[in-house]
Amino acid sequence: MADKVIGIDIGGTNLRGALVDREGNILKRMKILSEADQGINKLIDNLAGFIKDISEGESVYDIGIGIPGIIDSKEGIITEAPNILNVSDYPLRSVLDKKLGSDINIVIENDANSAALGEWWMGAAKEVNSMIMITMGTGIGGGIILDDKLWTGASGMAGEIGHITIYPDGAKCNCGNYGCLESYASATAIRRMVHEGLEDESLSTSLRESTKNVEIEDIPLIVMEAASSGDEFSLSIWHQVGVAMGIGIASLVNLLNIEMIVIGGGVSNAWDLFIDRAYSEARKRAFRAPMERASIGRGSLKDDAGILGAAYLAHQGCK
Amino acid sequence: MADKVIGIDIGGTNLRGALVDREGNILKRMKILSEADQGINKLIDNLAGFIKDISEGESVYDIGIGIPGIIDSKEGIITEAPNILNVSDYPLRSVLDKKLGSDINIVIENDANSAALGEWWMGAAKEVNSMIMITMGTGIGGGIILDDKLWTGASGMAGEIGHITIYPDGAKCNCGNYGCLESYASATAIRRMVHEGLEDESLSTSLRESTKNVEIEDIPLIVMEAASSGDEFSLSIWHQVGVAMGIGIASLVNLLNIEMIVIGGGVSNAWDLFIDRAYSEARKRAFRAPMERASIGRGSLKDDAGILGAAYLAHQGCK
Repeated sequence: MADKVIGIDIGGTNLRGALVDREGNILKRMKILSEADQGINKLIDNLAGFIKDISEGESVYDIGIGIPGIIDSKEGIITEAPNILNVSDYPLRSVLDKKLGSDINIVIENDANSAALGEWWMGAAKEVNSMIMITMGTGIGGGIILDDKLWTGASGMAGEIGHITIYPDGAKCNCGNYGCLESYASATAIRRMVHEGLEDESLSTSLRESTKNVEIEDIPLIVMEAASSGDEFSLSIWHQVGVAMGIGIASLVNLLNIEMIVIGGGVSNAWDLFIDRAYSEARKRAFRAPMERASIGRGSLKDDAGILGAAYLAHQGCK
Repeated sequence: MADKVIGIDIGGTNLRGALVDREGNILKRMKILSEADQGINKLIDNLAGFIKDISEGESVYDIGIGIPGIIDSKEGIITEAPNILNVSDYPLRSVLDKKLGSDINIVIENDANSAALGEWWMGAAKEVNSMIMITMGTGIGGGIILDDKLWTGASGMAGEIGHITIYPDGAKCNCGNYGCLESYASATAIRRMVHEGLEDESLSTSLRESTKNVEIEDIPLIVMEAASSGDEFSLSIWHQVGVAMGIGIASLVNLLNIEMIVIGGGVSNAWDLFIDRAYSEARKRAFRAPMERASIGRGSLKDDAGILGAAYLAHQGCK
C-alpha cells in the first residue's frame, strides 16, 4: 500500500479530488471545472493538469478515479458514460498512462461503486462487512459490498439498484423499463410526480408556482421545503418515495441479507420526509430476521464518499 | 481436500445421500425415508444410521448436509426449518458430533444453497464464476454464487429469491408479504391461480375436473399436461409464471450482473411453457449488456444438485 494516493470524482460540472493517506485522511483537497461538455479531450487535459496540481511536491504513483457510467475497471475502459462524457469504449487508463507516464497506476471505477466503497471504508458503513449504497440523485445509483469487497459483476455492471423493478406496470424509466426504483425515488421521478399532479388544475399546491422553470436538480429541495411547510401534495410525493424505497429495500434485504443499507445523494436530504415510510414498508415486506440484521443509515461523507472510495481502490493498487 | 466425502440432502419424505470423490463423481448412492414427521429424534437416528451405512468400508471424515430452512452454517445450527423439522435453534452439528464421534467434520447448509453449489460445481453452471439458482418447487428457493463463492449473507439468510417483490399489490405470499415471486411462479402460486380461475363458473377448462382432490405437488404437472393439450386457461397460467419469472430475472440481472441463471425444481419441468415468455419479459426490462452476458439454463443435476453441493462443502471442510 502506498503512503499517499489521489482519489478523484469526475462529475458533469466539477472534477473533485484529494490526496489521501493510508488511514483515509484527506491531506489536500481540490476542485476545478470539468468542462466535460466541451468534449473528452478537454476533459482529459483538465484531468491531467488536475492530477499534476494535486500531486505537486508529493510522490504519488496511484490514482483512483470514479466516473458516472459503465466502467470496465479491469481494462481501464469507459464502456459508456452518456450523461457526462458521451464516449463509448474510451481507453481512459491508457490515455492517462501516455499523458502521465507509465509509472503511474490508474484505477477507474463507476462513481456509485466508488461512493459505496468510500462509505464502507471511512463513512457510515465503517463497521460492517456487507452493505448496499443507494445514491438518490437525478437517477438512482448503487454499489454492493459483500464480504469486504465491491461486487461489480461479471462485466462491471452490477449494482444497478435504481433499475430493479418496483411496479411492473409503473412509470416509464429512462432505461426503457417500466416501474424501476429510479422512476419512483429519484429527482427525475419527483419531477414526473410534480408534473403529473399539476395536470389536475383543481389541485391546490405551492409547487404550481415554485417549480416553474427550475432545473431538475433543484426540484427535490423545492418539494422538500413545500412538504415541510405542510403542502399536502408535496407530502404525498415523499410518501410515494418512501413506499418505493421500502419495496426496494425489502427485496434487497431478502435477497442479499446485508448488514447495512446506506442512503446518500441529494434527494436523501429530505430524509425525515420519507425514511419512516420506507422503513415501515420494508419491515412489512421483508423477513423479520434479515430485516432486523440490516441497519439503514444516511451516508456520512457526502461529496467525499466518491473521492475516498476511489482513493481506497488506488491504495489497493488493483488495476 | 479429502478423497471421499458424503453429501446428504434432507427432504420432507426422503434422506438422500451419496459418497462423492474430489472430482464430483458419485461412487455410491442411497435413499431412505426421513420420517421427519415423527420428530427430530427419529430423524437424527435415521440420519446417523444412514451416514454409517453409506460410509461402511470407507474412511470418511467429512459430511455435508443440505436442509430446507434457515441455517446458521458457521455454528452448525438449524435456526428454523418449519416445513420439515419444526425445530428452532437446533444444534445439529454438535448432536451429530456426539453420535458419530468428533473426528467427523459436519458442514450444514440451506438446501437451495447446496443445490446452487451443486449446479455450479458439477452441473449447468460448471463454467461460470457467478450464478443464481432459482428452484421452482412448492415455494421458490434460491442460491447466489459470486466469484466462485456461495453468498449466504450476514446471517446465513441470503438468497431468498422467491421473496423479492414482483407485484407490490399482488397476491399474499406465505411469508406475509404481497406479490413475491414465490406467489407467482411456484406450485403454491399455480394452485392459487387455478383456484381463482375456477371461481368463474363460466370458465371452460379441463382443470375443473383434473385438479380435484390432488396434492399441491401434483398440480404443476396437471396444469402442464392441460396446457400441452391446448387448454387456454392452463396456457394463461404458464404465461403468468413466465412474466413473473422475467420480471424477477431482470431485477437480478440489473442488480448482480451474474453470468448465469440456473432454473430447477419440479415446476421447471414445464420449461417450454414459460421460458420464452420469461426470457422476452426479462430482455424487455433489463439493461442490454448485462442481460446478454447472463445465460439462462435448466439445472442439469435434478435431485443430485443438493447432494453434490453438500459434498462440495464437505470437501472444502468449512465448518
